[in-house]
Amino acid sequence: MADAFDPRQRDVRMRGFARRATVADALKWLDGHTHRLNEETVPLAEAVGRVLAADVTSRVDVPSFARSMMDGFAVRAADTMGASPYNRLALAVIGQSMPGRPFDAAVGPGQAVRIMTGAPLPNGADAVLPAEVVEIQRQRILAQDDVSPGKHVGRLGEDIAAGAAVLPAGRVLRPQDVGVLASIGCGRVAVVRRPQVRIVTTGNELLPAGSPAEPNRIVDSNGPMLAALVARDGGRPITPGIVPDDPEAILEALRAECDMVLLSGGSSVGQEDYAPSLVAEHGELPFHGIAMRPGSPMGIGRLRQRLVFLLPGNPVSCLCTYDFFAGPAIRVLGGRSADWPYRRVVAPLRRKIVSTIGRTEYVRVRLAEGWAEPLAIGGASVLSSTTRADGFVLVPPDSEGSPPGAEVEVFLYD
Amino acid sequence: MADAFDPRQRDVRMRGFARRATVADALKWLDGHTHRLNEETVPLAEAVGRVLAADVTSRVDVPSFARSMMDGFAVRAADTMGASPYNRLALAVIGQSMPGRPFDAAVGPGQAVRIMTGAPLPNGADAVLPAEVVEIQRQRILAQDDVSPGKHVGRLGEDIAAGAAVLPAGRVLRPQDVGVLASIGCGRVAVVRRPQVRIVTTGNELLPAGSPAEPNRIVDSNGPMLAALVARDGGRPITPGIVPDDPEAILEALRAECDMVLLSGGSSVGQEDYAPSLVAEHGELPFHGIAMRPGSPMGIGRLRQRLVFLLPGNPVSCLCTYDFFAGPAIRVLGGRSADWPYRRVVAPLRRKIVSTIGRTEYVRVRLAEGWAEPLAIGGASVLSSTTRADGFVLVPPDSEGSPPGAEVEVFLYD
Repeated sequence: MADAFDPRQRDVRMRGFARRATVADALKWLDGHTHRLNEETVPLAEAVGRVLAADVTSRVDVPSFARSMMDGFAVRAADTMGASPYNRLALAVIGQSMPGRPFDAAVGPGQAVRIMTGAPLPNGADAVLPAEVVEIQRQRILAQDDVSPGKHVGRLGEDIAAGAAVLPAGRVLRPQDVGVLASIGCGRVAVVRRPQVRIVTTGNELLPAGSPAEPNRIVDSNGPMLAALVARDGGRPITPGIVPDDPEAILEALRAECDMVLLSGGSSVGQEDYAPSLVAEHGELPFHGIAMRPGSPMGIGRLRQRLVFLLPGNPVSCLCTYDFFAGPAIRVLGGRSADWPYRRVVAPLRRKIVSTIGRTEYVRVRLAEGWAEPLAIGGASVLSSTTRADGFVLVPPDSEGSPPGAEVEVFLYD
Repeated sequence: MADAFDPRQRDVRMRGFARRATVADALKWLDGHTHRLNEETVPLAEAVGRVLAADVTSRVDVPSFARSMMDGFAVRAADTMGASPYNRLALAVIGQSMPGRPFDAAVGPGQAVRIMTGAPLPNGADAVLPAEVVEIQRQRILAQDDVSPGKHVGRLGEDIAAGAAVLPAGRVLRPQDVGVLASIGCGRVAVVRRPQVRIVTTGNELLPAGSPAEPNRIVDSNGPMLAALVARDGGRPITPGIVPDDPEAILEALRAECDMVLLSGGSSVGQEDYAPSLVAEHGELPFHGIAMRPGSPMGIGRLRQRLVFLLPGNPVSCLCTYDFFAGPAIRVLGGRSADWPYRRVVAPLRRKIVSTIGRTEYVRVRLAEGWAEPLAIGGASVLSSTTRADGFVLVPPDSEGSPPGAEVEVFLYD
């Protein structure tokens, strides 16, 4: 043999996990160790999709002035009393009010001001006579209908009154929310900081994503997949690249600046699985080995007060354990709901699902002709199974599975 | 009167719309005038959420080599035949194969190579004997179980075979899709170009979004709302700022470079509503005035071969007409589904909805205790109604509305 290889080396560590915790236990621990991050302010143009950090109350009335809702004439309503096509009442037109260019004098008795939709109602006027009920002459109009006070006038504060609650803390800002914030004069918004999530991919066999394929090497698929998942869940992925299977390099990556670490690969109990013992030694690793399939050889711990997720290198396991544990934690750090981000539909099973009592199963399915069809494809290493699938079914640990025809809840990937 | 104001000026144009087209007519015309844009290539790291422009087929096998699925020993299966705890068979350990560091010689009869999960299976070996069924001695192992050929071996092409279809054209790329593309050695991906959508906000009364409120002025809420909607629908918003109510400035904005124009404000038939006649004169304006509420004073046309949407300045009308017409067009240009992007739920009405035959209505509702409650709040100018609402109900033109308790489909804003 070439090098100082000793087949007995670390043989104890090849024996497997002593005990596997349940998914529920791990989620409960996470729930107690995951807290919303603090806030930051961002320009309004970057606020959509962010989570509002505090209730927003308006300091101003919107609109800040009474305005016309019609094209027509601003009048004193009393002057139109009794007007009809058979009793046309004359009013002197003394000017006009346009949007952004108000009439700067007052409307007196017997007077009118031509006004456009959205223009400020002049002082003295209390209603708008629509252009349709007016005969227009040179410097005067003949009113052919009457209007009551306030008619066709959008009142001050009609949309939002000064002092009113506008949006609640925790709101994931929608396009119209950003519009409303603009309308009350918000230039910047206080939102929950996006969690900075360091994605550490390990494995000496890996080529960086984007590389062409090479013999005896695997192109990293977990790195780009995790970056996309983190962004989906409102986090900001930090992707320093591939870290060699070397304890010092891994420890350095685990300790680098961020709000959370996702480490992919080397999460099990094999000879080159350094991360679990590093986290246990330099922080805490309360969970190593979870009763689930795929994804069993994973770990959850903390190091430097930050959550660390040790995700299996097998890509399906990586996706599944991310979605079970890391995704909800990122969403909660960012002020979002821990719930699964997938739409759900109910469909009958085309074929049975068999599961082992005591273990949570994540079964990829395809939807076809109204049926949910479990995909009979390989194990945790077959990532293409998740691109051929439309979603997945979860089998809880107290279930042995479901027979054909049973209605199951399908989480849709898209 | 101060300036050269003549109250008879343009009075014809104040009479309103001659005829309102139906929503269905406008959608049908749009369907015939909206075509997917061409493609561009982007780096893999920017591909998630983009639309695949062509089917992707793999040129390589993934993995590109047979690999071990266990920590153990690569062996010739035949050598283990008959092995058991009572019939331990000795094999000479001649080296090791690690991920990324394969064993570079062949395994002969009576030989074994220590192997880690994910490492290449050496030539000559055809199975992996798990570490758990082996007694390890100095330079040899004692097999305590037998394995059949192929056991614990991930075969070449197990995930993806060379030549296999991997992802179909039109797929909105999900995180795992990006992972699969990485695994087949994709560095760049051909995706549908994102539509460049120019957002032209008009109105002399408007202050730019982000400004503090000012007397007699309105802060632009449509601009930031439309930018967020365009981004949601896969477009790239171009936001040059507010354009004055001036025909030359508006024409210039309508003609500037982009794939589509959204013009907000000045879409009706008032004195300062220049855009409709500009589009009709320099292009075509087949639709002006749609039988819907809110949103009736809108227009749809083309100028320089590009779709132009004239959206009302009232923000609820702007949101609603965007969602009915502009949103689907942007999604189709970008290769996406024209369908409404909102989740739907069915709920009983808390109060009746009254609607006018011949008109499509967009009714904002709140969901409370399982009921859909129509919001009794103001008109098209009250944007805050859409932030207080959870979604909306559509009433088709052949309906007079629905009584309390009727089951309605609610489109959820979030």
